[in-house]
Amino acid sequence: MGGTMKAIVKHHRGVGAELQEVEIPAIKENEVLIKVKATSICGTDVHIYNWDEWSASRVNPPYVFGHEFAGEIVEVGSKVTTFQEGDYVSAETHLVCGHCPQCLTGKYHICENTQIIGVDTQGCFAEYVALPADNLWKNPADMPTDIASVQEPMGNAVHTVLNGDVAGKSVAIIGCGPIGLMAVGVAKAAGASQVLAFDLNEYRLGLAAQMGATTLINSAEEDPVEKAKALTGGHGVDVVCEMSGHPVAMDQGFKMITNGGRMSILSLPTKPVTIDVTNDIVFKGIEVQGITGRKMYETWQQVSRLLHSKQVDLTPMITHHLPLEDFEEGFRLMNEGKCGKVVLHP
Amino acid sequence: MGGTMKAIVKHHRGVGAELQEVEIPAIKENEVLIKVKATSICGTDVHIYNWDEWSASRVNPPYVFGHEFAGEIVEVGSKVTTFQEGDYVSAETHLVCGHCPQCLTGKYHICENTQIIGVDTQGCFAEYVALPADNLWKNPADMPTDIASVQEPMGNAVHTVLNGDVAGKSVAIIGCGPIGLMAVGVAKAAGASQVLAFDLNEYRLGLAAQMGATTLINSAEEDPVEKAKALTGGHGVDVVCEMSGHPVAMDQGFKMITNGGRMSILSLPTKPVTIDVTNDIVFKGIEVQGITGRKMYETWQQVSRLLHSKQVDLTPMITHHLPLEDFEEGFRLMNEGKCGKVVLHP
Amino acid sequence: MGGTMKAIVKHHRGVGAELQEVEIPAIKENEVLIKVKATSICGTDVHIYNWDEWSASRVNPPYVFGHEFAGEIVEVGSKVTTFQEGDYVSAETHLVCGHCPQCLTGKYHICENTQIIGVDTQGCFAEYVALPADNLWKNPADMPTDIASVQEPMGNAVHTVLNGDVAGKSVAIIGCGPIGLMAVGVAKAAGASQVLAFDLNEYRLGLAAQMGATTLINSAEEDPVEKAKALTGGHGVDVVCEMSGHPVAMDQGFKMITNGGRMSILSLPTKPVTIDVTNDIVFKGIEVQGITGRKMYETWQQVSRLLHSKQVDLTPMITHHLPLEDFEEGFRLMNEGKCGKVVLHP
Amino acid sequence: MGGTMKAIVKHHRGVGAELQEVEIPAIKENEVLIKVKATSICGTDVHIYNWDEWSASRVNPPYVFGHEFAGEIVEVGSKVTTFQEGDYVSAETHLVCGHCPQCLTGKYHICENTQIIGVDTQGCFAEYVALPADNLWKNPADMPTDIASVQEPMGNAVHTVLNGDVAGKSVAIIGCGPIGLMAVGVAKAAGASQVLAFDLNEYRLGLAAQMGATTLINSAEEDPVEKAKALTGGHGVDVVCEMSGHPVAMDQGFKMITNGGRMSILSLPTKPVTIDVTNDIVFKGIEVQGITGRKMYETWQQVSRLLHSKQVDLTPMITHHLPLEDFEEGFRLMNEGKCGKVVLHP
Repeated sequence: MGGTMKAIVKHHRGVGAELQEVEIPAIKENEVLIKVKATSICGTDVHIYNWDEWSASRVNPPYVFGHEFAGEIVEVGSKVTTFQEGDYVSAETHLVCGHCPQCLTGKYHICENTQIIGVDTQGCFAEYVALPADNLWKNPADMPTDIASVQEPMGNAVHTVLNGDVAGKSVAIIGCGPIGLMAVGVAKAAGASQVLAFDLNEYRLGLAAQMGATTLINSAEEDPVEKAKALTGGHGVDVVCEMSGHPVAMDQGFKMITNGGRMSILSLPTKPVTIDVTNDIVFKGIEVQGITGRKMYETWQQVSRLLHSKQVDLTPMITHHLPLEDFEEGFRLMNEGKCGKVVLHP
Repeated sequence: MGGTMKAIVKHHRGVGAELQEVEIPAIKENEVLIKVKATSICGTDVHIYNWDEWSASRVNPPYVFGHEFAGEIVEVGSKVTTFQEGDYVSAETHLVCGHCPQCLTGKYHICENTQIIGVDTQGCFAEYVALPADNLWKNPADMPTDIASVQEPMGNAVHTVLNGDVAGKSVAIIGCGPIGLMAVGVAKAAGASQVLAFDLNEYRLGLAAQMGATTLINSAEEDPVEKAKALTGGHGVDVVCEMSGHPVAMDQGFKMITNGGRMSILSLPTKPVTIDVTNDIVFKGIEVQGITGRKMYETWQQVSRLLHSKQVDLTPMITHHLPLEDFEEGFRLMNEGKCGKVVLHP
Repeated sequence: MGGTMKAIVKHHRGVGAELQEVEIPAIKENEVLIKVKATSICGTDVHIYNWDEWSASRVNPPYVFGHEFAGEIVEVGSKVTTFQEGDYVSAETHLVCGHCPQCLTGKYHICENTQIIGVDTQGCFAEYVALPADNLWKNPADMPTDIASVQEPMGNAVHTVLNGDVAGKSVAIIGCGPIGLMAVGVAKAAGASQVLAFDLNEYRLGLAAQMGATTLINSAEEDPVEKAKALTGGHGVDVVCEMSGHPVAMDQGFKMITNGGRMSILSLPTKPVTIDVTNDIVFKGIEVQGITGRKMYETWQQVSRLLHSKQVDLTPMITHHLPLEDFEEGFRLMNEGKCGKVVLHP
Repeated sequence: MGGTMKAIVKHHRGVGAELQEVEIPAIKENEVLIKVKATSICGTDVHIYNWDEWSASRVNPPYVFGHEFAGEIVEVGSKVTTFQEGDYVSAETHLVCGHCPQCLTGKYHICENTQIIGVDTQGCFAEYVALPADNLWKNPADMPTDIASVQEPMGNAVHTVLNGDVAGKSVAIIGCGPIGLMAVGVAKAAGASQVLAFDLNEYRLGLAAQMGATTLINSAEEDPVEKAKALTGGHGVDVVCEMSGHPVAMDQGFKMITNGGRMSILSLPTKPVTIDVTNDIVFKGIEVQGITGRKMYETWQQVSRLLHSKQVDLTPMITHHLPLEDFEEGFRLMNEGKCGKVVLHP
């Protein structure tokens, strides 16, 4: 297609990013070019913006970052047969190898050779993005672009919550960042009889209430384990979704779970965690699940349908819409925790 | 306790039943006596009332029938330690042996030696009923007696619908009798993205709408298979719950299911059914599940919590309340299909 | 590569086939050319050879048929990156679309648009075969070519038997054709405490004994259901693998299964089957599974490892080795049931 | 029955135990009296004998300890209907409450109110033991008494290994004490393609070889993680069964597991363990299972059948038979790790 476009570029090995005018990317034969309609800020983007230890060890500036979006296909590579110009799409951000044992057995989300769009490759904080057709997901025509943009993190929430039974069960969501808030909505939609939302941030607990939490617990003000036990006849909760990454909160999660319960961990604690394996895992006979990415594409199917059917309504937790140019404001909101999801519009 | 009570007695080997004054049953050391507050009419009771072939081969009049109820414990056997006077309870109606291979491996609902309360033993269409403590389920104090009474058939619906994943899936409920209507509500509460309700009876389709069905299909007026395909992009539905017992409807269910789908059969066709095993089961790679009774007591836990949390609201489908004396009217309504659930109050 | 090769050609719309000299196939950019070392005869090939109703409706002569093989890659297409010349491979025979809901959720074996190698495309009863790299499976260097050739049908046996728990369970294999014989070996290797082999053919029952069956039942001489019950304390078998396709045998399978058991059907009855749904599926609470193809590629991984580790030894059931030219003899043996597996060597 | 019997009594709050002549226990109406034919020493018994911190906090001397046995019923309580004099039995050692949420949903092995025979109640290191009929398991008449005696710990091995798929998978058994040795045999019987046995004790690695391990790794001499990777094409093992309780070995287990693998922990580390949750659980997408006790009685059924069918042969790992009087020798062997299983014969 040629020409230039606006893009948010991680321009140097340090804090911040810059809005720049860059070349519109050329596509390969198996790729499409997409005009971005909405692109949302992920916690990973904040790490890259803030230039923490992890980003310094992983990403290679200068490059365009960002990986959550919805947009319209404007150009199609010569070998692409399954999509066409005008299609309304979002994309899975894991680029997988297809030939490791995990890929060969359908577990693409834990591919041994995963690369991530916007981390290891050029991303979507821009007017256009070029992506392999194999990673696209087609959206229903009537899905709003902001909703379609946040399907990728919603996939993390769905993967975590629905990785076991939920209907008629008590579910604890520890950590009410954007994915935790989505998890509250998913648990409620999937028939949880109780959804306990834990956080230290009252603003986000307020959003959790709007997403359907049945009890809000500010872990700084109440003892989370005692509260969880009190709400479940002393037996503990059936399912814990760990989304905080804090060792103390994770330990509370292990302590509040009932015998035979499920602990699904999506968070990424920055250091090893000390766990009372004997009392909290073995004697309780619980199951601990590591959750990463989204099942490709079972999770996307679930996400798309839960949203399209209005079983889950994400409107309350998409709190801010900004033009792409105002990305600094978006990152500020994210860093302060004064938001649900922030969507940028190029 | 002694004394007499009103009871609906299946008094002879023929059509109908009689309200009689009978002895209040004496309890054994492992039993309790329950004052019945609400008792609902099941399809099985209608078979017994109508004296069809099955009842003639199974039940032994004269006896009190009925098996769905909620009530209060008024007397406790000497060996009963887990319940006490004043407890508000309902009961599982399968009396199981505890020592067959199924019971030994926790699959009590398919015990090889099952007896059924109100079919093989004295039932609850009466002011009082005596039951083993092991079969009781304790109800939350604030659950209305009519809701608590219909937990047993609700358990059939829950067992059927939740015997596999539902969240984000399309679910067909074939047959909108009382359990089918409950199944509509359960599927919706568990996150189904579409709930297709099929019946020939417009009154019951109307109730299905109130229970949350997303599409109503009168199978006499539309082609059910074509309709189901049209609503699912031509692929077919993910889950079919067969609750009609009609061979034609069951065949339609097999035809409308997608490759890899689930067919859960709760209904009891009166004759063997001809199935295109090659095309409808093998090539499609589907799973067909026979569903009977309720998982003891996993299903009861799910039922109680779905109702208590208001994830499922059965109010729209409990259409009639009658005094015990007016049971004839109740059976007439059931026979005519002009009702959802009919509850009798002694 | 060019030149000509020997191939078994289904040359006309009628009984039989011909050995012909045909062009060595040219490969596309995503394909490889394989020199066939061993190719085995499947029941499907016999149908095509015999020109039954199904073949007449499906295949388009003239073409090379056959789909089970092992061989060495001699030429690699320009876009193929995951295989190279000299690789020792076999192939999955389902060519799948990659974009239907089943493919998108990893259930490739029930792709809505499946084509089959050697049925819908050119096959491997030849000196060379051209195939897409995506369908190849790499074999361990020390696996004999006849064993490697029969991995595809072994995959059907593995998919059927291991589609649920087997260790410590009683397993009935109904029908001891080649896949049934493999299923006997798989059930034994996976820890079945009893493996009951049923057939009418004494020769094949003899092979079943060699594959590890713990009881042989000639269904013409003993009542299969009574025998199965007698061997399981009157309770019935835990798992039935239906591989006969005969309605009578399938009905016996339903009758011999225990409450809560599993019936996995791989066979393809030529007509609809009458099933006592109420008594044999619903009241028993069993699960009926349609099994088709192989999980791609989970089943291949299981097959390769079970064979390579010698947990399953197929030697006893590979009863005949013939040069490709003697294919007529191979089809005669298969039609007469006087063989296990017949392997042709080009 | 009355009279006295020989019994090994934990006689004081300190090291050791005494052979004493004590009263034959009287039975309650729901109990039976069993003449003990064989009784085996568990690691738990060694803790009690050695009087470690855990025993000091849990058991109340003086009392008869021991909980693994096989014997014959010699007296039956008045309410016992499912067993009779002469029956050949072993027993589940968890005494469960029957009314906590876990018991009510069939997960008796994680009952919130579990008591353990021989720990919290009188045990079986004696000529006779009195036990509730509900805890008995009937043995096949031809099962040797030493094999029947060790079914309880074999149940731990079965519960651990079979708590997920094993056929065609690589399985690591970390720690080759008696239960680890049994786990080796179970994994092999259930179709594992590789069984890697890890220990520091060459004697026990030798027993692991006899039980069917495909590779022996002395973790003091080779790097366990590198070795496991080398044996699995660099990908890591599919299933790790942690039976050592050592933090270092457990960490090695986490490091050697493949993406999407299963870690089943039966061991009881004496202190909290530090785990790299982010890299070893979350990014790998693994499942960690706490395993305690035996599924009641699904595990017993599996154990009985695996042993009776000879799929698992425990003979090599039952290394010592002693008269009850020589229990001191048995505990010495256990403390020195110079044995597999030690069986005492009263």
